[in-house]
Amino acid sequence: MMFRARHLLGVEQLSPPEITTLLDLAETYVALNRRTVKHGDALQGLTQINLFFEASTRTQSSFELAGKRLGADVMNMAVAQSSVKKGETLIDTALTLNAMQPDLLVVRHPHSGAVNLLAEKVNCAVVNAGDGRHEHPTQALLDALTIRRAKGRLHRLTVAICGDIAHSRVARSNLILLGKMENRVRLVGPATLMPSGAGEWGCEVHHDMEEGLRDADVVMMLRLQKERMDGGFIPSEREYYHRWGLDAEKLALAKPDAIVMHPGPMNRGVEIDGTIADDINRSVIQHQVEMGVAVRMAAMDLLARNLRAERGARAAEEGTYV
Amino acid sequence: MMFRARHLLGVEQLSPPEITTLLDLAETYVALNRRTVKHGDALQGLTQINLFFEASTRTQSSFELAGKRLGADVMNMAVAQSSVKKGETLIDTALTLNAMQPDLLVVRHPHSGAVNLLAEKVNCAVVNAGDGRHEHPTQALLDALTIRRAKGRLHRLTVAICGDIAHSRVARSNLILLGKMENRVRLVGPATLMPSGAGEWGCEVHHDMEEGLRDADVVMMLRLQKERMDGGFIPSEREYYHRWGLDAEKLALAKPDAIVMHPGPMNRGVEIDGTIADDINRSVIQHQVEMGVAVRMAAMDLLARNLRAERGARAAEEGTYV
Amino acid sequence: MMFRARHLLGVEQLSPPEITTLLDLAETYVALNRRTVKHGDALQGLTQINLFFEASTRTQSSFELAGKRLGADVMNMAVAQSSVKKGETLIDTALTLNAMQPDLLVVRHPHSGAVNLLAEKVNCAVVNAGDGRHEHPTQALLDALTIRRAKGRLHRLTVAICGDIAHSRVARSNLILLGKMENRVRLVGPATLMPSGAGEWGCEVHHDMEEGLRDADVVMMLRLQKERMDGGFIPSEREYYHRWGLDAEKLALAKPDAIVMHPGPMNRGVEIDGTIADDINRSVIQHQVEMGVAVRMAAMDLLARNLRAERGARAAEEGTYV
Repeated sequence: MMFRARHLLGVEQLSPPEITTLLDLAETYVALNRRTVKHGDALQGLTQINLFFEASTRTQSSFELAGKRLGADVMNMAVAQSSVKKGETLIDTALTLNAMQPDLLVVRHPHSGAVNLLAEKVNCAVVNAGDGRHEHPTQALLDALTIRRAKGRLHRLTVAICGDIAHSRVARSNLILLGKMENRVRLVGPATLMPSGAGEWGCEVHHDMEEGLRDADVVMMLRLQKERMDGGFIPSEREYYHRWGLDAEKLALAKPDAIVMHPGPMNRGVEIDGTIADDINRSVIQHQVEMGVAVRMAAMDLLARNLRAERGARAAEEGTYV
Repeated sequence: MMFRARHLLGVEQLSPPEITTLLDLAETYVALNRRTVKHGDALQGLTQINLFFEASTRTQSSFELAGKRLGADVMNMAVAQSSVKKGETLIDTALTLNAMQPDLLVVRHPHSGAVNLLAEKVNCAVVNAGDGRHEHPTQALLDALTIRRAKGRLHRLTVAICGDIAHSRVARSNLILLGKMENRVRLVGPATLMPSGAGEWGCEVHHDMEEGLRDADVVMMLRLQKERMDGGFIPSEREYYHRWGLDAEKLALAKPDAIVMHPGPMNRGVEIDGTIADDINRSVIQHQVEMGVAVRMAAMDLLARNLRAERGARAAEEGTYV
Repeated sequence: MMFRARHLLGVEQLSPPEITTLLDLAETYVALNRRTVKHGDALQGLTQINLFFEASTRTQSSFELAGKRLGADVMNMAVAQSSVKKGETLIDTALTLNAMQPDLLVVRHPHSGAVNLLAEKVNCAVVNAGDGRHEHPTQALLDALTIRRAKGRLHRLTVAICGDIAHSRVARSNLILLGKMENRVRLVGPATLMPSGAGEWGCEVHHDMEEGLRDADVVMMLRLQKERMDGGFIPSEREYYHRWGLDAEKLALAKPDAIVMHPGPMNRGVEIDGTIADDINRSVIQHQVEMGVAVRMAAMDLLARNLRAERGARAAEEGTYV
């Protein structure tokens, strides 16, 4: 099989064939999820723990459904209301959970790199569900599947990622994945919301929506992370919408069949016009959510296969029973 | 089959035969729940999402157990701590959930009509678990089942619904259901807690407990919704209890075999005397909770059957596979 | 079978053979949990409710996984955010839950004795997951299993329980269990953190770590319950660590093969040195967590067997069907 990873910490570590393997498997789960009885057994008898140090209803729900539909025993842990309050360290939390013998640990954390650190301490497969401004690999994978289904391919496309790039792990993971698959990526946004050094990332950087959107195949709007800003970035929501919000006029600059994406939740009238978001001929925003469950099922299925193989090999060596 | 609804939004839309069909099925689930192994498979492989925009441990637990006992993959979403904070609209939340392809969506919302609006946007079956002052259909159905079991019939009974009528969707749904089944319903309470226009609802309205309770077969006390009052309604809990609280003296006005009901949670010593609440010869309050799980199992089972039938018919037309 | 209890309210009520029966069964669950597919069916079709009036991520997670791994339908209820707010009493909550027909009710409550009171009101098996300063039986049982595995026996050991004895139900349950199994228990800590009357409990009491740790087989450190202190108990964390924290120097007083335990979550650098906590040759802290899941599986399995037997006997008498 083409997917050898032990963890899914970022798209950085994935090869193009691994990405393709995962998306192909996700297609079968899209089909399963569209049926009325949508229960599989790839994770039957396995334990999945969703460990969220940062609240995210949407992402956690997607992972929870993905696990339950594959038969896993799923447990949610919202760590804001837990031991962290009592002064327990991230590592102690990781070691404690590890001792409960989960097979899959899905982790979101506000600090970049925290999930990688955690993965070093545990025996199970770890899925990064977003860490700081670092990576959000399943988001990039679900975006990739959405694009591949809408455009018929995942290469040689011009993708404009627009808005609050600086605070966005979504932008970062998408930039890496789309680059690996040989697409032309443009980062488009005000200088104050562009990470320093973006000019050296091997992609185009635009500070003008007209330039950035011209002839794009895919227009990916980002959420304005108001809650992560400490002031000073933007003048007002109204002015932001005027210059950087996606409306019909700006979208007309992209290709006539360009699709519109947004990771959600949307600020309608701030980064995107509501009418465009709801236009089923252009917007694939609901498809992204649907692909999210399928991609997470595929990711956990592949990681579980590798986990079984690894444990099987070790047990064969030791003469024990898995 | 006699139950054709696609959603359960209110008792308003149910015909008497539909109500009877649902209660008859619920009886079989009462029997199942009394066994030690109480797991069925009517919802096996289906996804149930409990979407609560308003906290309610009791109702949410009842739906959660109902779904799990029928084999559904159940996911709870408490929306107070979620995307709503980030400014997402009700419709965006609905569309996002819909894209995750649930089969059953159980919704509680503080605004009347919000659940109906939501039901228009999704492909799955929606169950109203209480919306504003509008409807709470499963409560009325569980009350109906409780009454039918205690009195041996669900018609030609005199039912006194007492207390805070104005803030109560429980009162409203019960009034409609009991009316449809040809019972005599009385609304009993102070003028300040009586909805304007109650006089035109085709039921008796009493502002005196003596009159209201006289010869009643069923005395249904309501919870005093202190948290929904903005002051000015009632003088004090003590005075409220004196005039409107159910005590032995007031209950003596009802028929000797009258049953006492309360949707819970109770304010003992405010709307009801604790001794009466605990009197197993008169109070059926615990039975109401038991019937709640059974009625919700029956409702979701029936909706799922209709969903399967509808999808099956559509697939047959399209030549696809459900 | 040697285990006849209807509830698990405390180790006080358990006989030595019952303890041994439970630990022996837990051993089989340790083995199951170490496999990749770790799903059994001892609780298949049964309903387990985790009713936590006090937050505890660690204990609740352990019970949740234990139940799910045995096939129970598990429902969590955090009662801080629930009906308690609306003024419902503990007994009403218990009766309401009971009417939903759970088979296993796992309860944590801040008040000593609350769980025993609740157990009198319900028809199901109740497991005490910690009540005030009273008991925490599954903690004592998991500690016992950890000790038995590490030392090869669970009798004639010298066990030093150190630190904040006064606020600790963990200390109390361990003292009782270890006493029943004929071990020598020492309580070690400052006079301000020692319960009045400890001198009459039939164990040694030491106000000096040197004396307390000398030749101990097991050093059990307790968490400093800072959140339960109302001031005046301890001078500063630094001074506490100096006198009562476990460091290499103090540990050297115990036997060379003494093991180090802690119920977690740890305050590193307050009651225990981080290096010792992480030393896999001495510390069994992660094993305690692992044993926790196994012991809870065993406890719920045994209680469910008794529940079935009791219900079966009653049904046979009544000629009904379970």
